[in-house]
Amino acid sequence: MFNSFGRLFRITTFGESHGPAMGVVIDGCPAGLKIDEELIQKELDRRKPGQSVITTQRKEEDNPEILSGIFQGITTGSPIAITFKNKDAKEKDYSELADKFRPSHADFTYQEKFGTRDYRGGGRSSARETVNWVAAGAIAKCILAQKGISIKAYVAKVGHLECTKNYTEMDLDSVESNIVRCPDQELALEMIDSIEETRQAGDSVGGVISCIAFSVPVGLGEPIFNKLHAELGHAMLTINAVKGVEFGSGFKAAEMHGSTHNDEFVKKGSGIETRTNFSG
Amino acid sequence: MFNSFGRLFRITTFGESHGPAMGVVIDGCPAGLKIDEELIQKELDRRKPGQSVITTQRKEEDNPEILSGIFQGITTGSPIAITFKNKDAKEKDYSELADKFRPSHADFTYQEKFGTRDYRGGGRSSARETVNWVAAGAIAKCILAQKGISIKAYVAKVGHLECTKNYTEMDLDSVESNIVRCPDQELALEMIDSIEETRQAGDSVGGVISCIAFSVPVGLGEPIFNKLHAELGHAMLTINAVKGVEFGSGFKAAEMHGSTHNDEFVKKGSGIETRTNFSG
Amino acid sequence: MFNSFGRLFRITTFGESHGPAMGVVIDGCPAGLKIDEELIQKELDRRKPGQSVITTQRKEEDNPEILSGIFQGITTGSPIAITFKNKDAKEKDYSELADKFRPSHADFTYQEKFGTRDYRGGGRSSARETVNWVAAGAIAKCILAQKGISIKAYVAKVGHLECTKNYTEMDLDSVESNIVRCPDQELALEMIDSIEETRQAGDSVGGVISCIAFSVPVGLGEPIFNKLHAELGHAMLTINAVKGVEFGSGFKAAEMHGSTHNDEFVKKGSGIETRTNFSG
Amino acid sequence: MFNSFGRLFRITTFGESHGPAMGVVIDGCPAGLKIDEELIQKELDRRKPGQSVITTQRKEEDNPEILSGIFQGITTGSPIAITFKNKDAKEKDYSELADKFRPSHADFTYQEKFGTRDYRGGGRSSARETVNWVAAGAIAKCILAQKGISIKAYVAKVGHLECTKNYTEMDLDSVESNIVRCPDQELALEMIDSIEETRQAGDSVGGVISCIAFSVPVGLGEPIFNKLHAELGHAMLTINAVKGVEFGSGFKAAEMHGSTHNDEFVKKGSGIETRTNFSG
Repeated sequence: MFNSFGRLFRITTFGESHGPAMGVVIDGCPAGLKIDEELIQKELDRRKPGQSVITTQRKEEDNPEILSGIFQGITTGSPIAITFKNKDAKEKDYSELADKFRPSHADFTYQEKFGTRDYRGGGRSSARETVNWVAAGAIAKCILAQKGISIKAYVAKVGHLECTKNYTEMDLDSVESNIVRCPDQELALEMIDSIEETRQAGDSVGGVISCIAFSVPVGLGEPIFNKLHAELGHAMLTINAVKGVEFGSGFKAAEMHGSTHNDEFVKKGSGIETRTNFSG
Repeated sequence: MFNSFGRLFRITTFGESHGPAMGVVIDGCPAGLKIDEELIQKELDRRKPGQSVITTQRKEEDNPEILSGIFQGITTGSPIAITFKNKDAKEKDYSELADKFRPSHADFTYQEKFGTRDYRGGGRSSARETVNWVAAGAIAKCILAQKGISIKAYVAKVGHLECTKNYTEMDLDSVESNIVRCPDQELALEMIDSIEETRQAGDSVGGVISCIAFSVPVGLGEPIFNKLHAELGHAMLTINAVKGVEFGSGFKAAEMHGSTHNDEFVKKGSGIETRTNFSG
Repeated sequence: MFNSFGRLFRITTFGESHGPAMGVVIDGCPAGLKIDEELIQKELDRRKPGQSVITTQRKEEDNPEILSGIFQGITTGSPIAITFKNKDAKEKDYSELADKFRPSHADFTYQEKFGTRDYRGGGRSSARETVNWVAAGAIAKCILAQKGISIKAYVAKVGHLECTKNYTEMDLDSVESNIVRCPDQELALEMIDSIEETRQAGDSVGGVISCIAFSVPVGLGEPIFNKLHAELGHAMLTINAVKGVEFGSGFKAAEMHGSTHNDEFVKKGSGIETRTNFSG
Repeated sequence: MFNSFGRLFRITTFGESHGPAMGVVIDGCPAGLKIDEELIQKELDRRKPGQSVITTQRKEEDNPEILSGIFQGITTGSPIAITFKNKDAKEKDYSELADKFRPSHADFTYQEKFGTRDYRGGGRSSARETVNWVAAGAIAKCILAQKGISIKAYVAKVGHLECTKNYTEMDLDSVESNIVRCPDQELALEMIDSIEETRQAGDSVGGVISCIAFSVPVGLGEPIFNKLHAELGHAMLTINAVKGVEFGSGFKAAEMHGSTHNDEFVKKGSGIETRTNFSG
């Protein structure tokens, strides 16, 4: 089950960066859901490397091929399988890479663990895997949208350049209007300059992504081992190169007093909400 | 997890009979295993309908396409994905079938459960699904062969024609030499005649399959809920149309006394075995 | 997960026959369910060995201790833990049993598999484990009752004495009125005589149990690997000494023609049902 | 499966703070392991609230009762069940708490999610649950010790007081010698003063814990969804009040260049290690 994630909505993925294809099987998607194939393609296009000068220059074509689970544009309740041909895989000689191990990559670890690996690239450990996640995520978004739940993410920090505005002060829909995807348009320009400068020096730089989920119902997730935080944190930490995850006040909570950090309940209309959201 | 089976060696399958493709993802296959692709094809050929006059006449081509998990003929420890194009799917008008429900098939049940279905055929419930199982089983057999374990099955009963010989009295390797796959060659001829007669009357007939696993080590399976019997029985009962499963003495145990049924331990060489195998 | 069973309603069990206690943790029981503790005790009393001269003479007291998950008689959605003290466990010398292996029991297999075992009795492999299952089953019955589903089982065969009446011709509620629990009261007397005779000869005899589930909704279970038959068969085959399981027509299907075996759909009122139920 | 965690070594927990008992079932512990019961008690004693003036003043007795899985001090491969009686549960009137919801606690969420709850305390959401985790952790440590793996944790930050020394510069075994468990003994005194001051003002303060795992073999964890980071992060985020988790360079990675962050491979003796450990 090492290549599966989720319980009710479960994805199983496969594929190596230089193999014939990547693919994802989505199990547990409800029947009767209209799948907006354009939305899938749109999300895939957002993921696509090579869109701008500041990102990985590798050009990838990501045309999803839906093999099952959708009939006449409607999900049937059967597993949805989507594959992506790896068009870049070439018939050339990769043998010189067989005993080269890139630092901070999984090459060495895979070789030690499995005793063999597809050395033509990252293989199974390549971030190309995320093409599968994005396709599954696009379908998940369709389900969430039916419940009125939406999710927005943006780049909040690049190197020392940090977006200090609260998300409520920015137009999160404007995130696509610049290539670094920071909704603070002025800061975005600074970030782009900084990345470009670093790139020209043959280097790269870290960053932080902020993500907001809107209209999450009370009680989502399960007590103890499947708290929403724990499940989301697990998911975030499966992304290559992610070194940390925080919710609400995050690491800043360490410096706060309980009297401040407690999220006071207040009545709002017929419902109840909290005045603050330090608990995330 | 409804379309997955197994724990350490887990398969996840997808595909509908009239959709673009069938497929299986095999997770947990050890790295370093030489996969004999010919063996996969050979097992698929054994499964193929339309091989003789006595079986389903639908002609299917089953050419496996391996998308991942195998590099230079050796498993890498990554999930192995295999797909099969459904070449029979035609652009014709199936709409008249949308509200036809075949008796003892899943058509009605799927329609009630999901509110929609791919009505061009059995869809997800079609026995075409077994193409996925056979491919995964071929790989499982490669693993088992490394441990000296082999599995043989044969048709033991067709209608009232029953093979009463013990499996030790027959050449199980001869099972492929007749189209009904009964190792009792004389009985096989009778079975074939009987099936042909029934088929010409526009009818079909039931049967029983016997299966022997050789060299199974002591202690395979897990106590309580994952006893080997329970796991195997679960697997057998997922096959369309299977109505029962029994091990060792099976239902005959009901008529036996404990004094007879107990499998007495005896020494054999440096090991221990049982004189009888009523426990299966 | 070897000592857990089920997905949405999952039980995890523990305990050895001669250890301090048996126990079961029931996870996934809905909140707000009124648990009838008397029903639990009543089911446990039905299971209790030593109720009559024809069964195992070991006397067991099964007083459930509910440790969690129920507050003021109502389930809270938290896991329900129930333990049973093993009152029979005595401080005596069992060491002579350490290298005795009973035939057709798990003693030898456990020793080989684990290299050690609690040799004072069957330990984890003892049928005393079923005390956990009965308690969990009693709670499951409360949930099913809310949906109008009920389950009845009875002894249908003992040795060569077979109940040939259809279940619809018998009063299944009368099953508790005789100690062998066969609803055919005359046959029950014969069965009791036969068992008593066998017992006096120092022997035991096999049997068959029939079980009917009433008002099961269309579409229960999941396609492919979690068909209701497969799940139930799995569960039945985890019971010690069970050698076979069949549904509907069962092994008799082998001798039937498709034309007879097909369960024809018929309208009944506003709904649809099948004229026969060979598919089980 | 919401109250279970882990795959090969899986714990299932139960119990509410004011119910009869807490408990854990440990499934998958290998047979033949000598369980040091003193070690379990020692770890439980470390967890026990009320040990000093600076922590929760509730006094809890945590005497583990081992119900199964251990015979003559050796694990048998059967599930290990451990329960803890809740001695504090008193027969008093809690009904006034039925509609009180503490801020930043799960009271309100549980009420909304389940429609009912054990309102005498945190119930299932109480941090008393950790008594189960500590007992299971003590057994896990026994297994890890056999492989030479050890784990040390310490308080690295309280409010604005931060331990800036690298763990290699401190004696991590000295962590028990002060009540705040910071190995920097001078800083520990400051932390204790700060906590005591905050407590007298009727408030509480946050903190950060650092944890080091020693001698972790290459290749532990599984590719993609069960990376060691993801599994550990998941576990950490199940702890009440934890708001963030980071590995290696953590959030500081955002400000680093790839040229610095890459962990260069170097030969050490016959093996290979990395010069830095920013990847964690």
